[in-house]
Amino acid sequence: MGNLMNLSTKLTLDAWKQEVSRVSKLVDELPDDDFKNEVAPGRNTGVYLLGHLAAVHDAMLPLLGVGDISQPEMIEIFIKSPDKSEHIKPAVNEVKKYWHDVNKKLSGEMDKLDDAQWLQKHTSVSEEDFKKEPHRNRLNVLISRTNHLAYHFGQLAFLKR
Amino acid sequence: MGNLMNLSTKLTLDAWKQEVSRVSKLVDELPDDDFKNEVAPGRNTGVYLLGHLAAVHDAMLPLLGVGDISQPEMIEIFIKSPDKSEHIKPAVNEVKKYWHDVNKKLSGEMDKLDDAQWLQKHTSVSEEDFKKEPHRNRLNVLISRTNHLAYHFGQLAFLKR
Repeated sequence: MGNLMNLSTKLTLDAWKQEVSRVSKLVDELPDDDFKNEVAPGRNTGVYLLGHLAAVHDAMLPLLGVGDISQPEMIEIFIKSPDKSEHIKPAVNEVKKYWHDVNKKLSGEMDKLDDAQWLQKHTSVSEEDFKKEPHRNRLNVLISRTNHLAYHFGQLAFLKR
Repeated sequence: MGNLMNLSTKLTLDAWKQEVSRVSKLVDELPDDDFKNEVAPGRNTGVYLLGHLAAVHDAMLPLLGVGDISQPEMIEIFIKSPDKSEHIKPAVNEVKKYWHDVNKKLSGEMDKLDDAQWLQKHTSVSEEDFKKEPHRNRLNVLISRTNHLAYHFGQLAFLKR
């Protein structure tokens, strides 16, 4: 990484990448059909959770101010609607591709940010509010999304027999 | 917080505390009997996962170099042994108390560390290795344990009907 980044920020970014790569490993190992199962009886399906995570990561591009949402229809299906909605979901292999594509793009953009940029405000807070609440920065988005990812990864892991 | 701490470190510590408080809320809300259930068919019971998290946090005291393990027998039951082992498990209310006690102690000790101390090595790496691998510090323990907590919290959440 060629940018100026203090060790704390680098550790946080590395932890994000590690969680992403753990989920990617599961995505690559488990057959598509397994993702059609509920992770536990009456709970979300694997494909919904995977799509949800990918869509949340897609929405991080504008939130971090580093790009536009790549597939707005996925936000509708996997964030704004619950699993058992009237939406016709994309095939598992498409959701798997979406997962990989979004994280590749996001990771590339994240690598361009230096430490000072990580501590700048994210795009859903105003300049005025950010003066009073300096913790509402990009780094905090990264931390909270890492925990969100780990939370659902714990559930996705139940797809394994 | 009276100590010198840069914003990155503070955000990381705040995220830890937030995950702990989310789990504590579940612990306080759900009746003891619900913790006896498996989080999903054939998976760990709630009480095992809660005891596992508490024991892992207990073991952070010596790993961060801020104290001794408070209940070594819990390490045996909840880290070194699987759920369905020959060990007689403590009652759910004892495990709940263990959860709260350990995190209170740990949080108190964490609040005493300043930024430079967070970037010092944790106790399971040698001085020599730490020179080559400066990421093996206390802060990295905190980050990885936060993700571990979020992972199992996603599973514990299935105890809710």
